[in-house]
Amino acid sequence: MAQEPMNTDLMKSGLLKTTGAGVLREHDLGAEVQLAGWVARRRDHGGVIFIDLRDSTGFVQVVLNPEEAPAPEDVLHGLRIEYCVQVMGTVRQRPEGTVNPDLPTGAVEVVAQRLRVLSTSEPLPFPLDGRTDIDEGLRLQYRYLDMRRDRVSRNLRARSKAIRAMRNVMDEQGFLEVETPTLIASTPEGARDMLVPSRLRQGQFYALPQSPQLFKQLLMIGGVERYYQIARCYRDEDFRADRQVEFTQLDFEGAFWGQEEVLATIELVARRVVADLGHSIGPDPFVRMTYAEAMESYGSDKPDVRFDMKIVDLSEAFTDTDFKAFAGVLADGGSVRGINGGQLGLARAGLDALVSEAQDVGAKGLVWMVVEDDGSLRSPVAKFLSDTEQADIASGLSATPGDTLLIVADHTNTVLDVLGRMRLHVGQPDGHDELAFVFVVDFPVFEVGEDGALSPAHHPFTAPADLDALVHAPETAVSKAYDLVLNGSELGSGSVRIHDAAMQAKVFEVMGISDEDAEGRFGWFLEALRYGTPPHAGFALGVARFVSILQGEPNIREVIPFPKTQTGADPLTGSPSRVKKDQLEELGICVAPDVVAAWAEEADSDPPTTDT
Amino acid sequence: MAQEPMNTDLMKSGLLKTTGAGVLREHDLGAEVQLAGWVARRRDHGGVIFIDLRDSTGFVQVVLNPEEAPAPEDVLHGLRIEYCVQVMGTVRQRPEGTVNPDLPTGAVEVVAQRLRVLSTSEPLPFPLDGRTDIDEGLRLQYRYLDMRRDRVSRNLRARSKAIRAMRNVMDEQGFLEVETPTLIASTPEGARDMLVPSRLRQGQFYALPQSPQLFKQLLMIGGVERYYQIARCYRDEDFRADRQVEFTQLDFEGAFWGQEEVLATIELVARRVVADLGHSIGPDPFVRMTYAEAMESYGSDKPDVRFDMKIVDLSEAFTDTDFKAFAGVLADGGSVRGINGGQLGLARAGLDALVSEAQDVGAKGLVWMVVEDDGSLRSPVAKFLSDTEQADIASGLSATPGDTLLIVADHTNTVLDVLGRMRLHVGQPDGHDELAFVFVVDFPVFEVGEDGALSPAHHPFTAPADLDALVHAPETAVSKAYDLVLNGSELGSGSVRIHDAAMQAKVFEVMGISDEDAEGRFGWFLEALRYGTPPHAGFALGVARFVSILQGEPNIREVIPFPKTQTGADPLTGSPSRVKKDQLEELGICVAPDVVAAWAEEADSDPPTTDT
Repeated sequence: MAQEPMNTDLMKSGLLKTTGAGVLREHDLGAEVQLAGWVARRRDHGGVIFIDLRDSTGFVQVVLNPEEAPAPEDVLHGLRIEYCVQVMGTVRQRPEGTVNPDLPTGAVEVVAQRLRVLSTSEPLPFPLDGRTDIDEGLRLQYRYLDMRRDRVSRNLRARSKAIRAMRNVMDEQGFLEVETPTLIASTPEGARDMLVPSRLRQGQFYALPQSPQLFKQLLMIGGVERYYQIARCYRDEDFRADRQVEFTQLDFEGAFWGQEEVLATIELVARRVVADLGHSIGPDPFVRMTYAEAMESYGSDKPDVRFDMKIVDLSEAFTDTDFKAFAGVLADGGSVRGINGGQLGLARAGLDALVSEAQDVGAKGLVWMVVEDDGSLRSPVAKFLSDTEQADIASGLSATPGDTLLIVADHTNTVLDVLGRMRLHVGQPDGHDELAFVFVVDFPVFEVGEDGALSPAHHPFTAPADLDALVHAPETAVSKAYDLVLNGSELGSGSVRIHDAAMQAKVFEVMGISDEDAEGRFGWFLEALRYGTPPHAGFALGVARFVSILQGEPNIREVIPFPKTQTGADPLTGSPSRVKKDQLEELGICVAPDVVAAWAEEADSDPPTTDT
Repeated sequence: MAQEPMNTDLMKSGLLKTTGAGVLREHDLGAEVQLAGWVARRRDHGGVIFIDLRDSTGFVQVVLNPEEAPAPEDVLHGLRIEYCVQVMGTVRQRPEGTVNPDLPTGAVEVVAQRLRVLSTSEPLPFPLDGRTDIDEGLRLQYRYLDMRRDRVSRNLRARSKAIRAMRNVMDEQGFLEVETPTLIASTPEGARDMLVPSRLRQGQFYALPQSPQLFKQLLMIGGVERYYQIARCYRDEDFRADRQVEFTQLDFEGAFWGQEEVLATIELVARRVVADLGHSIGPDPFVRMTYAEAMESYGSDKPDVRFDMKIVDLSEAFTDTDFKAFAGVLADGGSVRGINGGQLGLARAGLDALVSEAQDVGAKGLVWMVVEDDGSLRSPVAKFLSDTEQADIASGLSATPGDTLLIVADHTNTVLDVLGRMRLHVGQPDGHDELAFVFVVDFPVFEVGEDGALSPAHHPFTAPADLDALVHAPETAVSKAYDLVLNGSELGSGSVRIHDAAMQAKVFEVMGISDEDAEGRFGWFLEALRYGTPPHAGFALGVARFVSILQGEPNIREVIPFPKTQTGADPLTGSPSRVKKDQLEELGICVAPDVVAAWAEEADSDPPTTDT
């Protein structure tokens, strides 16, 4: 376990141990030590027993010679993996030839004078040695054993360190840590709120916060000019690989601030976390890109800029094309765009797989072209394209021999989306050795649906860049909203907020929220805006995603101490679960009749499993 | 506002301000500054307007001379209290005679070259000057204005600082910060759990944690030898003056630890918080007292040891008394005890009020005696007591002329409880200038009810001091549980935990929890105990109570950013509240029919107020 040694001041005052197993070195030779930890490995060499003793500081080898009677024979021979033991002994040099240079303590061993079993262990449901792939369900069910493994243990330490780094920056910058409530008011928009029935006020509910948004704005109104919090937030929906029903974010807000101050602060935070987790990034300011630019060049508002492979608009090359597929798309107002996938070296089957892949992500088709040594293009559609068109493609995509070019023709949104995904498919590097941060700015106020319907892209407290533009051309209006992206993942987002009650009313109107509706949903907040609200702006940064990328972990569950599954269940404790009727009665609620009826049907087919 | 200046690095990068109002001093004379904040006061002196500009760093006086046109006349004369403004100006010396030595910025003022109103304010619901007592309901409804006041602002900063102090000690001592889940499994004992219906698993519920108890024990099993967390916890009941439906505690646990290591850590934490909040306490170790001693001498497990006034057992003096009230009590196995209330100087009415007070807290009666100058006792019962008895009382209570002695005869528990309360009533100092910390240790395993029934005094994972004693004499058995008490308030509690599955099973048995019941409630935890659980111990320290005592605040709501009322309501946002039926339907729950019926009845008599 590559961990730093713990502070051992308090450990020295312990009844059971005087030092950590993993901190012993040659300068400790001759020292009498008292260790406590777990039996990670056990080897019997001609009567002498060797154990690797593990604790939170690492490992050390312990030698148990039955002739020196560190414990009764039956205890020594009964020792099993993961028994929790205490060892009193002396640090000595390992015999020549047995030094282990891979282990920090590999030059020494502890000869036991006494061994005491503090508690025994049943056989483990899976090995802890890290050499075996273990089913995630089993790992979560025995998370307390899983976290004895190096991987989880390292991730928990990294997470703790990341959060400390965030707090240190915030403290240094004069931010005040304020705890906002987690039992808050549900709003009628809160179809997504998690609710908490009140016992003292039966039939009434609290909601759990999806973010501390309105409370942090209230803090700005309250004159707390710099606020931060490591905040727990909740969302009972949309379980994708990288979402959890509860999650943690660094949440901050600054009064008398605009976008620049927020972005500068985020960069300070991100750099500190990166450095404290042992990574490095260059001194250049984080790349900044508008939403429009990100979509146009990368087909995504979360561009992975570790590699270039920009999307290029080739439409002009086909203004007069005879190739009907392209001509039709252009006539319909669509576009033809492509990426240069580089030296993919794919055989025909591999190229066809790319076509299927593109179709899977929403393309009607994908044109591939391989650049031959003589510069000509090999492609199923080459014969339909004129020499000029082929030359324009090659020059537009800076083609060199051996490159694979990928072209999509469709509605522009589809083209960008598909090429953005194909770009990641063929170009995205494995792992996270490189860290490429991007600020995406100038997000649109509205997302335009397939049917042309507008839906707000951010919460309605986000300031528009230009109120007139919002009113007169809402579909192209831009807001003062920004995201931080790392290696193609969104780490967080924020915005400049509306600080003026009249502008807020206007924005509600454009968003189709009636005065009455606004009053019912946010009346108390609209009132607060009327008491000298300062201009303010802020951000929220997801802790788990950031740490998982820095740790090279494929999903955020790896950096969460006790995660839930993708469907929100905890295999360890069995939550969520049915509860007794009388427990609900005390809260003044009941399970809906249709749900109970469904249970009854299940019970008819299956044996009942829970008392309801 | 007596606050430290903020770090101004980032403020300098701000668009709207270059420095804080409260940090300007004579060494800034001549500096051109850009300030932003709120109009705290406004005075019109012959056309020249003076405002006190307030921001999070404090106040400074700003001079607006209309002749120098810092803003159009109508803007200058339209300025109102709590308008949010930006001022560009020059720092200059205040004219002789107008220096204000009470204000940190009192030697200087800022002459405005320009003033801009960033946002206006409606007239306030209450003044912010701190000179008026304001109804707490109104303060909570406008908490964002309330926190512009010095009192709340100071308390929020103190709270933030206290939490940082706690974290600093934990970090220095090698504790790992780990976030435990807040959506956990409800247990059938969880009649007190707050529940959260799951949307994805209709009819199933998460529970909010009353503490991270089992998760922190799992972390110990998982090999995290030192865990801490500033944890949000929940309890929807028992709204006393000093409880909230959600609250925050410093939660920590150590493996291979016993009571001594935990108490040493708590003392480190408490001393750091005290120091960082600007208080001082002596170097002596915190007083330590057994539960039995605390009850016997102070009539409370939360002894306020800022003053002595111990309870004295006087029973022996009355072995052969003729005073029937005392004789009867002693014959019934009760006792006669007293305290020396000192120089109370009460007239007859005051003494009678003490008797009523004692009856209010459960005494059948209270005997008062005033020591006359000649050492004799003046008391309504004096005539029933022999000279020897009177002399024994006087010597037992170390009486000196002018002292008021208070005596109660009853069941011993009642006597101790009543005298403990009377002791606080007559002896407890106002305010918190002195800080008296006490560790109360050796708590009993069971509380004995009036009917003799035993109920566990702590959670069932608390280690008994002696398992045999627990089995054979449960009513007097002692557990390895301990509390930290400050000035008569419990700040937190903890214990050594059971780390052995067999002992845990035995303790469940003594507590009357059947195997089946234990399995249903804690099966997953009992299984975890079987995998090499280390000995461990921990503690939880309430943040709000500690900070409120250090800040001299009478209730914890004063140190909570957005507190709820004693009945769990938030007058600001209106939570908890009724929600729409379809919102509940999505969660697979409904409001219980009897609650809906009660609403209908209300609606018949009152106009309906909420759409349900």
